[in-house]
Amino acid sequence: MPQVEVCYTPQAYHLFHNDDAIVVVIDILRATSAITTAFYNGVSKMIPVATVEEAKALQEKGYMAAAERNGEMIEGFELGNSPFGYMNNKVKGKTIAISTTNGTQAIAAACNASEIVIGSFLNLDVLTEYLREQKRNVILLCAGWKNKFNLEDTLFAGAVADALINKEGFDVHCDSAIAAGHLYHLAKHDLFGFLSNSSHRNRLAKLDLERDIKYCLTPNQCPVIPVMRDGVLIKK
Amino acid sequence: MPQVEVCYTPQAYHLFHNDDAIVVVIDILRATSAITTAFYNGVSKMIPVATVEEAKALQEKGYMAAAERNGEMIEGFELGNSPFGYMNNKVKGKTIAISTTNGTQAIAAACNASEIVIGSFLNLDVLTEYLREQKRNVILLCAGWKNKFNLEDTLFAGAVADALINKEGFDVHCDSAIAAGHLYHLAKHDLFGFLSNSSHRNRLAKLDLERDIKYCLTPNQCPVIPVMRDGVLIKK
Repeated sequence: MPQVEVCYTPQAYHLFHNDDAIVVVIDILRATSAITTAFYNGVSKMIPVATVEEAKALQEKGYMAAAERNGEMIEGFELGNSPFGYMNNKVKGKTIAISTTNGTQAIAAACNASEIVIGSFLNLDVLTEYLREQKRNVILLCAGWKNKFNLEDTLFAGAVADALINKEGFDVHCDSAIAAGHLYHLAKHDLFGFLSNSSHRNRLAKLDLERDIKYCLTPNQCPVIPVMRDGVLIKK
Repeated sequence: MPQVEVCYTPQAYHLFHNDDAIVVVIDILRATSAITTAFYNGVSKMIPVATVEEAKALQEKGYMAAAERNGEMIEGFELGNSPFGYMNNKVKGKTIAISTTNGTQAIAAACNASEIVIGSFLNLDVLTEYLREQKRNVILLCAGWKNKFNLEDTLFAGAVADALINKEGFDVHCDSAIAAGHLYHLAKHDLFGFLSNSSHRNRLAKLDLERDIKYCLTPNQCPVIPVMRDGVLIKK
C-alpha cells in the first residue's frame, strides 16, 4: 500500500525524501493559494525561485515577476502573493517568476523529488483525486513559517492525509500525519475560527488581509493542479 | 508576560533558542520518564551523553552506565531506558551516565540554554508549578524520533502549555504550542488509547513494552524535577 507522510517544515524534508514519492507543496497563506489561483485564471507558466534577486533577474529578462517577504509585496514587482492579484486578464497566457517567504523555499527544498505538485484548499478535491489515482507514496510538505510549524498548512495536510487514509486505503506510520488529521477534524467546520489565534493569521490580519485569508480557506474554488516540470510550474 | 513555545524536534531548536528561557526536555517514551523515575528512586546524579562511546568511556571510569538505541538496551551496559530498571536499590546514591536514541540528543541540542529541566508525565504537576513560579519564557523541547515529530512528546508539551496558558496567563504566539494544546485536549482522557496508532507506541509494542508505556503515560507518580547543572543532571 502507498504511504502518506506529513513534513511540517522545509528544513526537515531530507528526513522524508524518497525517490518515488509525489511531494505536495503547501503554503496556504498564501503562496500555493496564489499559484493555484494563477493557473485557474489562465497563467501559462510560473518559475518559482528562492531569492528575490533571482526574481529580479528574470524580471529584467522580460518576465512578469512576483515577490513577497513577510506578507508584503516587494517594491518594483508587479505582483505579490495575494491570490486576488492573479484574477486579472493581465496575467493570462503569461510566464511569471515568483519568490515568496516560505512557499518557494519549500519548492526548492523538494527539488530532488520525482514529482512536485502544488496544494491548497482551492484545489483540495481534484488534488486528492489525482493522488488517489497515482497509487504512489505521498509526502505532504508544509512550507510553515521560516522553518517553524504552522497551523494552516497542517490543517490542509490533515485534510488530504485523512481523505487518502480513510477513503483510499493509504497507509500511515507517521505521527505528523496522524496529528494533522486530528487537527483537521477539530477545525474543518470552521477553519477561519479555528485559526483565529494562529500566528500567521494574526500577522496577516495586521496587514488587513482578512479577505485573502477567507478566500484561501474556502475549498475547491480552483480545480486545477499546478505541477513542476524541469523547474517550471505548469497546469497538469 | 512570559511566553511558552513548543519545539517539536531537536533539529529545530536553534530557531527557538533565547538566552533567558527555561528549556524543558521531553522524551516520554522513555528517556525523560526513566530519568524522572531514577531521581525519584534515589539516584544522585546522571550524566547525559549523546553517543554510546561516551557512555562506554564513563563506564570504564567506574560510573554505572545506561545506553539505548532503537528501543533496546545496548549489550555491555547495566541499564537501558526502561523506567523499571531504575526502581532498584542498586541505583541509590549512584551517578549514572546515560545515552539514548533521542532524549540525550535533545539535551545536547539545548546545551546553551540558561536552564534545562526534565519533563515527563511522571512529574507533570510539580514541573508546571515550578515553571509558573519562575515567570520566565519556557521552551518545551520534544525529543521526537530521529528528528521527526512524535505524538507522545507533543501531548505532554500540550499538557504543560495548556496549564501555563490557561491558568497562569503565559502568552502564546506559537502555532506548535496551540496545536499541542488541542491534541492534548483530544487525548487527555485516554492517552494510551489515543496513541494506539502512533509510530513509537507500535515500535515499543513489538518489543513487548506495553507495561513501560502505561507507566510513562500515568501522571504524577514521581514528583521530582531533574535539572541540569554544569553538564550533570541533579534533583532540584
